[in-house]
Amino acid sequence: MKYERNFYQIRQNKEILEELRSESDSIGYYSLPFKETSEIKNYAKNVKQKQIYLIGIGGSSLGSRAIYTFLRSSLNFKKNLYFLDTIDPLKINSLIKLNNSIDAHFVVISKSGDTIEPISILKYVDSVVSINHLNCTVISEEDSPLHRFAKVNSLRFFSLEKNVGGRFSVFSVVGLLPLAIIGVDIDKLLLGAKEVHESFFREDYYYDLIINKARFLVENKGRFNNNIIFSYSSVFKDFNKWYVQLWAESLGKINKNGTRQGLTPISLLGPDDQHSFLQLIIDGVRDKTVTIFKIENLRDSSRVPDNSKFDIFDSNFINNRSFNDLINFQADATYKAILEQKDIPCDIITISTIDEKNIGRLIYRFQLLVSAISSFMQINAYDQPGVELGKKILRDLLKDD
Amino acid sequence: MKYERNFYQIRQNKEILEELRSESDSIGYYSLPFKETSEIKNYAKNVKQKQIYLIGIGGSSLGSRAIYTFLRSSLNFKKNLYFLDTIDPLKINSLIKLNNSIDAHFVVISKSGDTIEPISILKYVDSVVSINHLNCTVISEEDSPLHRFAKVNSLRFFSLEKNVGGRFSVFSVVGLLPLAIIGVDIDKLLLGAKEVHESFFREDYYYDLIINKARFLVENKGRFNNNIIFSYSSVFKDFNKWYVQLWAESLGKINKNGTRQGLTPISLLGPDDQHSFLQLIIDGVRDKTVTIFKIENLRDSSRVPDNSKFDIFDSNFINNRSFNDLINFQADATYKAILEQKDIPCDIITISTIDEKNIGRLIYRFQLLVSAISSFMQINAYDQPGVELGKKILRDLLKDD
Repeated sequence: MKYERNFYQIRQNKEILEELRSESDSIGYYSLPFKETSEIKNYAKNVKQKQIYLIGIGGSSLGSRAIYTFLRSSLNFKKNLYFLDTIDPLKINSLIKLNNSIDAHFVVISKSGDTIEPISILKYVDSVVSINHLNCTVISEEDSPLHRFAKVNSLRFFSLEKNVGGRFSVFSVVGLLPLAIIGVDIDKLLLGAKEVHESFFREDYYYDLIINKARFLVENKGRFNNNIIFSYSSVFKDFNKWYVQLWAESLGKINKNGTRQGLTPISLLGPDDQHSFLQLIIDGVRDKTVTIFKIENLRDSSRVPDNSKFDIFDSNFINNRSFNDLINFQADATYKAILEQKDIPCDIITISTIDEKNIGRLIYRFQLLVSAISSFMQINAYDQPGVELGKKILRDLLKDD
Repeated sequence: MKYERNFYQIRQNKEILEELRSESDSIGYYSLPFKETSEIKNYAKNVKQKQIYLIGIGGSSLGSRAIYTFLRSSLNFKKNLYFLDTIDPLKINSLIKLNNSIDAHFVVISKSGDTIEPISILKYVDSVVSINHLNCTVISEEDSPLHRFAKVNSLRFFSLEKNVGGRFSVFSVVGLLPLAIIGVDIDKLLLGAKEVHESFFREDYYYDLIINKARFLVENKGRFNNNIIFSYSSVFKDFNKWYVQLWAESLGKINKNGTRQGLTPISLLGPDDQHSFLQLIIDGVRDKTVTIFKIENLRDSSRVPDNSKFDIFDSNFINNRSFNDLINFQADATYKAILEQKDIPCDIITISTIDEKNIGRLIYRFQLLVSAISSFMQINAYDQPGVELGKKILRDLLKDD
């Protein structure tokens, strides 16, 4: 019989592809790379302030932060982007210095429009710098409390489609608007994402790459349940954080058979974390996969000086090398040390240059990877029921206090 | 027969205690809280510069960094401490601004005295600010290349005992000297550590706490192999990093029966990571333990403003609350949400106030916990053979290039 199969059989790659194809109607992020951006670009052009503050937490800020941190060192943006994402009192206190600055513009983002953290921060910011239609833009779902707040206070409002989840929203207005304001070429960003989308659904290069990795991770999830990304450049610092959210919040789910699923993301930065976590990778239990990131060409000219004063150290072989070379050699050495173990799954992703297209590609590639994994696992990658419980308990605790 | 037992039987708590007691002769960190500090304090007093740069990576910097970040917001230090720990070109470039500053003092730390990263950074720093006996202090093992460098250049040298490993060195001159220079009361710090040491070996409060937790983690290591610390205050940011190194590098080992051991440390900061990782804790596979950290009394007065302009949001119940209260309510809500799951091991550590004694206690408590776990696991917590392999490969790659 055509449909007969063992209960433990993992589905075929082609079935997953079809499922993702049919999801494209109901899950919003698939079509984001193909959307018109002129309204966003026109509005962004008219924001004159130089200091841009994004008020938002989790999916509302991690995506734009990943892209900003990736690009900032290489592209010279004329404006700064700051992220107000926590209610930590020590961070809140530092906001006092805003001090009615005329040069600040606030982009307030909350999908549900009533998340406690951004609303508290907004209240606090408004007590320091009065919020008005000239210095504040709002992004939320239609008809949310934040949308109503925008209407009452005549703030410019952009709506986020209901079927685009926070951690899949970076190519929507949530990520594009703040990035466009500071000068990121958002069309190039989308071009990178589109390229991956098309290649994947055409069953081309990215299809093989993504579907094979997803299958490997799912087939071996009982054995390798920790997935490390080991990034050899500080430009990936916030990409790593974005990855942790995408992975943890999308894949930590109860599946349609009632079985708990989940892969644990671990974020490392090289070379620092060689002196922290590498020992556990090399000699510890074999429950980890490793993906190494490196940057091939960093526009950078700093070199290790050659000075005979330091001949005492057995390290003259690093003299006159660029620090970029040195960090890439360290990435390669870690890769080699891991491969020598023979039983640690490890791959390496090299980004040729730092630009919008490459980070667009990388982010969309990971989003598709997560969609494919969750399809294999038969879970819903796009909700987060476990977080809602904490939110409810918090409200109850505060109301009862 | 007295010694007869099943091969799978985990050793008795008292055996572990005796092993740790007898280790105290050969493993240096046990006696650090009892050492004389006047030489360090006298030298520190005479460092006149206000900008202190610690050049060191891994265990040479993570400990003092954890303590500095913990104390900085509450104690008003007159000096700043910066950590030059990476050869990332983007970070190296920012050093150019040092620009022969007369107000900078460099503390160079490397246990082996020839670690590639700090030596490269030192070379670079020396090309910008010339290093001399007035602006540079050196810490290393005796007779290392760095010690010889100090002698040749007449730099003040402090020696680190050979039997004190990097991640156990924060209460030695490695941590105490830079902290004393910026004004930390290092005697209070040691007092906290000493208190835990004495309580533990007297089989008092800390003995029960530590030995029971160690036993639980080892007995359940096959099931709960990921150990999260979820810290609800940014003062713990670098303590979290210190914990990751301590845990990963001490416990990721092949034990005396040739079996791979290891527990995986995961570092989270609340409330931000509620919007990132909490979903995986609540609905994902049950392979995690959680330890929540909070601060009871933070000297802080910022409050959520009460302004009718924001009545549109269903959150008036947070008005007039301090942000410190709010973050602690979030910690409690997360704790409750996890407890409701009934099968996630979770504990909560509340620090009463931010001071030297409390961070001394906390750090020493975790060091003893790791010693106890590794004794149960029959591994050596104090070496890191897996890291040496990467270092060797790096040297080979660079020399052959």
